[in-house]
Amino acid sequence: MTNPTVVQAPNGSEVSFWRREQLLAHWSTRRDVKALAYGCRLNALSAIQAAGSGHIGTSFSSMDIMVTVRQFLAGDSFLTKAHKDRGIFFSSKGHDAPAFYAVMHLCGQLEDSDLLTLRRLGGLPGHPETITPGVPTNTGSLGMGISKAKGFIKAQRLNDPASRNPVVVMLGDGELNEGQIWESLPGAVRDGFSELIAIVDSNNIQSDTWTDKTLPMGDIQKRVEGSGWHYLECDGHDIEGIQGALRAAESDPRPSFIVAKTIKGSGVSWMEAFDQSGDYYKFHSGAIADDLYRDAIVQLAPGFTGEAADGASGVGSENRNEFDGLTPRPRPTNMLVLWEQLLPKLMAENSEIVIMDGDLSYDTGTHLARNQFPQRYIQAGIAEQDMVSMAGTMALAGKTPIVHSFATFLTMRAAEQIFNNATEYSRVLYFGFLAGLVPSAPGFSHQAVSDVGLMASVPRMRLVEPSCLVELESAAKWALNQPDPVFFRMGGLAPLESAQVSVSPGDLVERVPGTKSALVASGPLLAQEALQAVEALQNANGSSPALFTMPWIAEPLSATALENLASFEQVIVLENHNPAVAKHHFVTQQLVGTSTRVHRIGLDGIPANGQPAEVLAHHALDGKAIVAAIQALGTD
Amino acid sequence: MTNPTVVQAPNGSEVSFWRREQLLAHWSTRRDVKALAYGCRLNALSAIQAAGSGHIGTSFSSMDIMVTVRQFLAGDSFLTKAHKDRGIFFSSKGHDAPAFYAVMHLCGQLEDSDLLTLRRLGGLPGHPETITPGVPTNTGSLGMGISKAKGFIKAQRLNDPASRNPVVVMLGDGELNEGQIWESLPGAVRDGFSELIAIVDSNNIQSDTWTDKTLPMGDIQKRVEGSGWHYLECDGHDIEGIQGALRAAESDPRPSFIVAKTIKGSGVSWMEAFDQSGDYYKFHSGAIADDLYRDAIVQLAPGFTGEAADGASGVGSENRNEFDGLTPRPRPTNMLVLWEQLLPKLMAENSEIVIMDGDLSYDTGTHLARNQFPQRYIQAGIAEQDMVSMAGTMALAGKTPIVHSFATFLTMRAAEQIFNNATEYSRVLYFGFLAGLVPSAPGFSHQAVSDVGLMASVPRMRLVEPSCLVELESAAKWALNQPDPVFFRMGGLAPLESAQVSVSPGDLVERVPGTKSALVASGPLLAQEALQAVEALQNANGSSPALFTMPWIAEPLSATALENLASFEQVIVLENHNPAVAKHHFVTQQLVGTSTRVHRIGLDGIPANGQPAEVLAHHALDGKAIVAAIQALGTD
Repeated sequence: MTNPTVVQAPNGSEVSFWRREQLLAHWSTRRDVKALAYGCRLNALSAIQAAGSGHIGTSFSSMDIMVTVRQFLAGDSFLTKAHKDRGIFFSSKGHDAPAFYAVMHLCGQLEDSDLLTLRRLGGLPGHPETITPGVPTNTGSLGMGISKAKGFIKAQRLNDPASRNPVVVMLGDGELNEGQIWESLPGAVRDGFSELIAIVDSNNIQSDTWTDKTLPMGDIQKRVEGSGWHYLECDGHDIEGIQGALRAAESDPRPSFIVAKTIKGSGVSWMEAFDQSGDYYKFHSGAIADDLYRDAIVQLAPGFTGEAADGASGVGSENRNEFDGLTPRPRPTNMLVLWEQLLPKLMAENSEIVIMDGDLSYDTGTHLARNQFPQRYIQAGIAEQDMVSMAGTMALAGKTPIVHSFATFLTMRAAEQIFNNATEYSRVLYFGFLAGLVPSAPGFSHQAVSDVGLMASVPRMRLVEPSCLVELESAAKWALNQPDPVFFRMGGLAPLESAQVSVSPGDLVERVPGTKSALVASGPLLAQEALQAVEALQNANGSSPALFTMPWIAEPLSATALENLASFEQVIVLENHNPAVAKHHFVTQQLVGTSTRVHRIGLDGIPANGQPAEVLAHHALDGKAIVAAIQALGTD
Repeated sequence: MTNPTVVQAPNGSEVSFWRREQLLAHWSTRRDVKALAYGCRLNALSAIQAAGSGHIGTSFSSMDIMVTVRQFLAGDSFLTKAHKDRGIFFSSKGHDAPAFYAVMHLCGQLEDSDLLTLRRLGGLPGHPETITPGVPTNTGSLGMGISKAKGFIKAQRLNDPASRNPVVVMLGDGELNEGQIWESLPGAVRDGFSELIAIVDSNNIQSDTWTDKTLPMGDIQKRVEGSGWHYLECDGHDIEGIQGALRAAESDPRPSFIVAKTIKGSGVSWMEAFDQSGDYYKFHSGAIADDLYRDAIVQLAPGFTGEAADGASGVGSENRNEFDGLTPRPRPTNMLVLWEQLLPKLMAENSEIVIMDGDLSYDTGTHLARNQFPQRYIQAGIAEQDMVSMAGTMALAGKTPIVHSFATFLTMRAAEQIFNNATEYSRVLYFGFLAGLVPSAPGFSHQAVSDVGLMASVPRMRLVEPSCLVELESAAKWALNQPDPVFFRMGGLAPLESAQVSVSPGDLVERVPGTKSALVASGPLLAQEALQAVEALQNANGSSPALFTMPWIAEPLSATALENLASFEQVIVLENHNPAVAKHHFVTQQLVGTSTRVHRIGLDGIPANGQPAEVLAHHALDGKAIVAAIQALGTD
């Protein structure tokens, strides 16, 4: 019983985890919450390792709190499947989902077989979603948690005016950047929501680096108390300390805000070791190398068993400096890498460019340019509305701000600010990454599918979805030499080979010549799938549908492009977003009156979560499905 | 020289104002800032009276501050056309635009002839916009001001690293509800923006009533100081007090936050008289009755001239109780009134309905239901993100929240929260008012034109734009008996007469039978214009285009509706929003393969500001333009 169970995960890797019966047996004899948390750490890490991605640092910092809160709500029977919670607990930051799931497994809400389905189609979403029974609400986009807790409380009180069942919401300290957190505080005081307990996993590190190097939040106690809340602090790794804070919070007539001091990566020595001079925390997200994984298991297991684990790998804490020097892991060339390399060149040529990002330097490609032009870089923090409005007045003052975030956070969180900027006849360039169905593992909150519908109806906005370096570079240079705001919809995937030297608005780029049918795609994801489809059809029956990419996705085609398309019997437009006045619309509208028929293959509705190949197949957007669709049209 | 100039305003009413030469002459002899502010109050009031609408209460409370800030930035030459400001001043709340313009006129940035063009096409927008030379940035949607000030400062410092020119932004105290205000504070401290001065027109009353009865903000000093800002208070009607606070702010190394205590409606006795038991402040927005206007002029003029004004009307402060008992002015029957009467009935029938609004009870029709079902009403304050997320979890808990605000604030400020709710498979009903081109007087910030593009691409969202009571009632009852979220796009205009007993998704409602051409409209604005067009064509040449309304605007037509439309040669779809996958798209797509041709007449881009008839003509959306469009098609 002292060793975790070793299994082969769905992705073929070998991982260790504690089965629920092992956790239960341990609790029945030892009653040790801290040990359970170590057990859950091991399980969360293995779930991430099996998934190939996930947020480990915050899962570890929040784990002691999570287990303690569950016991607080359900009492000592909290591991039984029949346990009854007195209230509701969820995590607003959401990227601690691996921890949340590990604790759900601990508490009998997930089976052993569920645990390693993280980030797979039909499995556990990358951020918690209500499609998993037992998850109270969808999270993953930051800042909504206190508002959500208030909604649960209001509903409870409407059902039973005497109810004061605690609603506990976990926040991240980076998440405190978001204005909605501060917006949501006063109403809880006005309405006397004493059962509301917010608990901050205060590990002092946000996405890229230390919170104090990102956007220092000032005196949080003063800000919280100024809003009329009860403020408490505790050690987030001291079970009794957390329990005491929860009890004090529950008995106070005010809503309570507990800052639990934690260590990011708590439980594994080299994950904990990020010193104040460090500028990039390496264990925020992503699976880790195999030798690190093995060492982490060796470090974590004794916390649960009380015994040294088998198989010490030699990569122990004494060797931790070896890891401190790691730079972000090398990435395969993808659209993001193309942008991070292009951006410094553009800034060197144009001194009016100012760049901003929302605590996502490495994920949106600003980190090289930032180092080269620190005066023209603004770290906005996780504060998209502030970032976009600030960009707006810089544009009015003659600068060319280039604003970066993930596509859905940028466009949807700051929609009204983007609209406001557009009505000022100024020019801001918006770069939204992770746009569309893939990456599909993090879940709904990270999948931008409404961004095109929104941005295409913002006045003056031009929309570009490039598929290769030339499309990106041509569009970026064009954007810097015209007066309108531009939304660059960036997939993070491998680009196509460039096919020509430059492109302009209204152009189609021919990727594969062909007859009868033409496929039109934008962005690398569906262009790559379409390419596979075209190649498969060529091999299968010698027929050859054409493939074009269309980088400007929401404006009329040029006369040449139109003439070209009109020579096909069928045009199949591929859209990596929900229906909008974009590619399909313009192609259809402009081919009215010709004999060409236009079809759309694309997303509509809530995108599926899971590994890319799974979700592409699920939505009938992979090469195979595209082949079938073309064959169904009966022309090839 | 002791009487204001009396002129006929563009709308035909007779108004009084101080010409710039009168203001200049007065300043050259008396150097009295307080008196200038009285002069500007009279001018702002007259601008509103000429426009027929505008925000008078906040224009008066902020006036002393505005004039003082302008002198602070430009020195005693601030009334000369050649004056140079040391920095930038703008108002974030924006609805004090009449005051802002009156002060621009005072300072030589607007001519006498501009002053009375408020809210007219080509004149002064209802909220400040950069299309008026001298206006630094577009405002009107709340909460963006500090972020915008930071953008100006960053640009100034990039141009001249030594620059510390003050950037002064005026906020409303109601505006402090918005999360973006609190989101924008920390960055200013981190970046050492000592030249940033926020000054709050703290009149204690927001849109509907007292701030403390809406969403009490707690200890603002503590919250602001906790964020690292320099906090000051002053009497916002004491010129020396304001001057002292500005000087203290400028000399402090931190960004400064001045709370200037003011009186809403300051300068006119009965506008100031709103006691703590009052529940609806009557002078937040709108022109006032003629006798009140005359009395206000009598009260305001002596503040400027130092002499009693001619023509005391007898409606003086001694009679103010006469006005305290006023309920909101009676409104002609319009879509809003239909909703405010229907809502209590729906709540009486369905105990799960919970309603919320964002400090707009009277403008979104919740005030009657609120009084009847206080437990099931939540005043969210001007905090749309918080409101929408709270609605989301209430829906998860089995309630049916109905969320109210103006369409653009609701959809664009809370876009990501709406998306998040939609991915939970829950049902929230969103009621967005002032949707579309009209009301066109308040300016871009209040005109929802991107809302349909956004909402139509949110997963599961159903969109309804009703034109009459039956369409509204049928759709509301339908919405309460199906599982999806629904966006009700509400025009505030006079409804059509109902034409049938009930309607369902996919239906067209025949309003006028006809042949050859069919017009399809949604919502009262364009339906009314289309009706005029149809009637004009019938009268002119006996031909009779048909008119249909289409209440569900973003989903397929029923087979019957489709068959009906396919019997026409031309279908003209009218859209009161920017292009989106909505009516026009579905009609076009479903008529592919028939001989029917589909045309769109609608908005695209930034909507014009001004009086309704002006902007409808400007966008070629009035009855006359629709007639011309039909005639150009050559079928009627």
